[in-house]
Amino acid sequence: MKNNNWFNQNLLSYLLEDSIRSAWERVSVTKKKLTADVSLGNPFYPPPKKIINLLIKKLRVSYGPRFLAYMDNAGYYETRWAVAKDLRKQGLFPKELNENHIVMTVGATGGLNCVLNALLNPNEEVILLNPYFVEFPKYIANHKGTVKIATLTPPYFDLEVKCIEKIISPKTKAIILNTPNNPTGKVYSASKIKALASFLKKKNNQFGRPIFLISDEVYRDIVYPPHHFVSPCCFYPYSIMVYSFSKSLNLPGERIGYVAIHPQADKNSILFNLIKTANRALGYTNAPALIQKIIPDILPVKLNLKNYQNSRAQLASALEKAGFSFQIPEGAFYFWVKIPTAEKRFFSSAKRAGLLVVNSEPFGVHGYFRMAFCQDPQTIRLACQKILMLAKSL
Amino acid sequence: MKNNNWFNQNLLSYLLEDSIRSAWERVSVTKKKLTADVSLGNPFYPPPKKIINLLIKKLRVSYGPRFLAYMDNAGYYETRWAVAKDLRKQGLFPKELNENHIVMTVGATGGLNCVLNALLNPNEEVILLNPYFVEFPKYIANHKGTVKIATLTPPYFDLEVKCIEKIISPKTKAIILNTPNNPTGKVYSASKIKALASFLKKKNNQFGRPIFLISDEVYRDIVYPPHHFVSPCCFYPYSIMVYSFSKSLNLPGERIGYVAIHPQADKNSILFNLIKTANRALGYTNAPALIQKIIPDILPVKLNLKNYQNSRAQLASALEKAGFSFQIPEGAFYFWVKIPTAEKRFFSSAKRAGLLVVNSEPFGVHGYFRMAFCQDPQTIRLACQKILMLAKSL
Repeated sequence: MKNNNWFNQNLLSYLLEDSIRSAWERVSVTKKKLTADVSLGNPFYPPPKKIINLLIKKLRVSYGPRFLAYMDNAGYYETRWAVAKDLRKQGLFPKELNENHIVMTVGATGGLNCVLNALLNPNEEVILLNPYFVEFPKYIANHKGTVKIATLTPPYFDLEVKCIEKIISPKTKAIILNTPNNPTGKVYSASKIKALASFLKKKNNQFGRPIFLISDEVYRDIVYPPHHFVSPCCFYPYSIMVYSFSKSLNLPGERIGYVAIHPQADKNSILFNLIKTANRALGYTNAPALIQKIIPDILPVKLNLKNYQNSRAQLASALEKAGFSFQIPEGAFYFWVKIPTAEKRFFSSAKRAGLLVVNSEPFGVHGYFRMAFCQDPQTIRLACQKILMLAKSL
Repeated sequence: MKNNNWFNQNLLSYLLEDSIRSAWERVSVTKKKLTADVSLGNPFYPPPKKIINLLIKKLRVSYGPRFLAYMDNAGYYETRWAVAKDLRKQGLFPKELNENHIVMTVGATGGLNCVLNALLNPNEEVILLNPYFVEFPKYIANHKGTVKIATLTPPYFDLEVKCIEKIISPKTKAIILNTPNNPTGKVYSASKIKALASFLKKKNNQFGRPIFLISDEVYRDIVYPPHHFVSPCCFYPYSIMVYSFSKSLNLPGERIGYVAIHPQADKNSILFNLIKTANRALGYTNAPALIQKIIPDILPVKLNLKNYQNSRAQLASALEKAGFSFQIPEGAFYFWVKIPTAEKRFFSSAKRAGLLVVNSEPFGVHGYFRMAFCQDPQTIRLACQKILMLAKSL
């Protein structure tokens, strides 16, 4: 061991890169009040009041022996039963789906790590579509996998089989799909997803083993008409759904989500046991108990999208007026905007203007920036002003 | 890739071993009512009522924008500040300790995984004392470390430097100490811990780099007079404390704990940032928000140990009457008992008698069994009867 290796050198590099990125993004705290911070996807609005009332009721009524004790690593039976029923009712899975296909997890990030841990042997490949959620490559590395990037085509960044075809190989174990997409706001259509499903089925036959489609659906409930959400799980039996209540119910800090395994996947029962075991073996142990207890009652609760629709309309109008090039997000709460000048110059100008946005580089793409519109109305109004100021200064 | 490698082969082996173990331990469900289940350390008693009231109050009073939103990956500032203050007050760390040495985690298991991730480069060694908590070796493997076992001496399984001296090497990155100990119930004395600390300091000088002492203190608040808890953190600057409220407040399902870094450790600020980054990079993101919010108010709440003391006395008396060989647990809630016959025969007899205990093999030791006495009074009474029945049948 080298004497300077006090710590994990890989994590240290990751941390240093991250610090540089943060410094790049962040303006000084003293200027904070004059800054329109649309950098993070951390919803301003609190969870629906009904959730608070249900939590209070549960604390009052259910208190007794082993309240908040350990449960099965997969989560409470009643919670998993209700989730399975809800997914069947929504038509996202066939009627065979039951509680033995559901593992409650520490958010979608916990769920995704459990799934990757259950699937990956060293150096097996996982395909990501570019741009991708910034943490995906790290998660794949956590479980000794290798990242392969399928580069989607601007300006729509739509799901295209031909992009995946180029890099798929007998070493491909899984592909991660995220619809509605963070950062692009794209919602993939049924026809695009069907094309991918039939391509993967062909490949499975060729390779003699399934490629798993991990469907990250955390923005599933945030889709703007006339668009509508289509789950890959409807078309492909080797689908694994990863979901979180963070974005659909505004409680990302509470860390509650689940994994649902397609009941028509061969060996789905082994996969269930592996994901459940990973939940324990990776140190999560189980999803937090109290919030799990109210899941059966909150499944029908849906977020009112009016605030997001207003913010989306305001920002779209400002971006258009300012002459930026972008697509109106079909789902989630991000704008993905082309940088019209040299990147360095653009971010200096944005900083000077007091518009706090995220560089596209961590998403694996050059030349774009991301704006999150899950902020309060005042921040959105300020951001609109800043966008116009910024455009003039470029 | 082999065509039969549908899943992670390592995790699959782990799962299969585990299934064998579970089958071994478990009696059929139909016999459940006649069985004294003292296998798992899952407390029967609920959290103190005060915790429920604080949660209800917090839900009522603090509801508003970004309630339950993401926070710093290290946890809420107020929570970390209160934890640091409490640890200083308890005299477990020197007065330099502050919120920048505290990371709130998904229980101690989440905390331990973050610490190991922050420290370990591939193949660096972590020393475990035998017997050790069953999941430790898996956690070390998660972060590519190598397990080295220091075998402690029966019947006391006390902390002895000479056991560690044999296996320490320039590849040793850390040692995990667990006091009060699961499974032995041993509480290490100040003199034993001091001896280890001065041995480690000598080794640090020799190796030109620190060996970190990870102190798992999840049973710290469960110690029976005249014994008292001594933290390794009081004697060694390269200590990292891992704590959980699971056992001290009976809420293991809620997943709340913390990591505290010794403020006199060189590079403690880098280590803090690494552990915080690991919290995100491993998919935990942050400790659950709601329970974090009441931590400042529950730090003074202490569990009443009377129930545990009663159960301990009853079981000790039964075990003695039955002629088993064991030490009275000084802390935690486990008996660690010598198996008086051939192991296979013993577990068949225990199963027939309806006494559900845990084999010592997963703890890395042959010839013992573990009984958890955090159960309800009826189960304890039944276990006492079963112990006598079992002894007669051997």
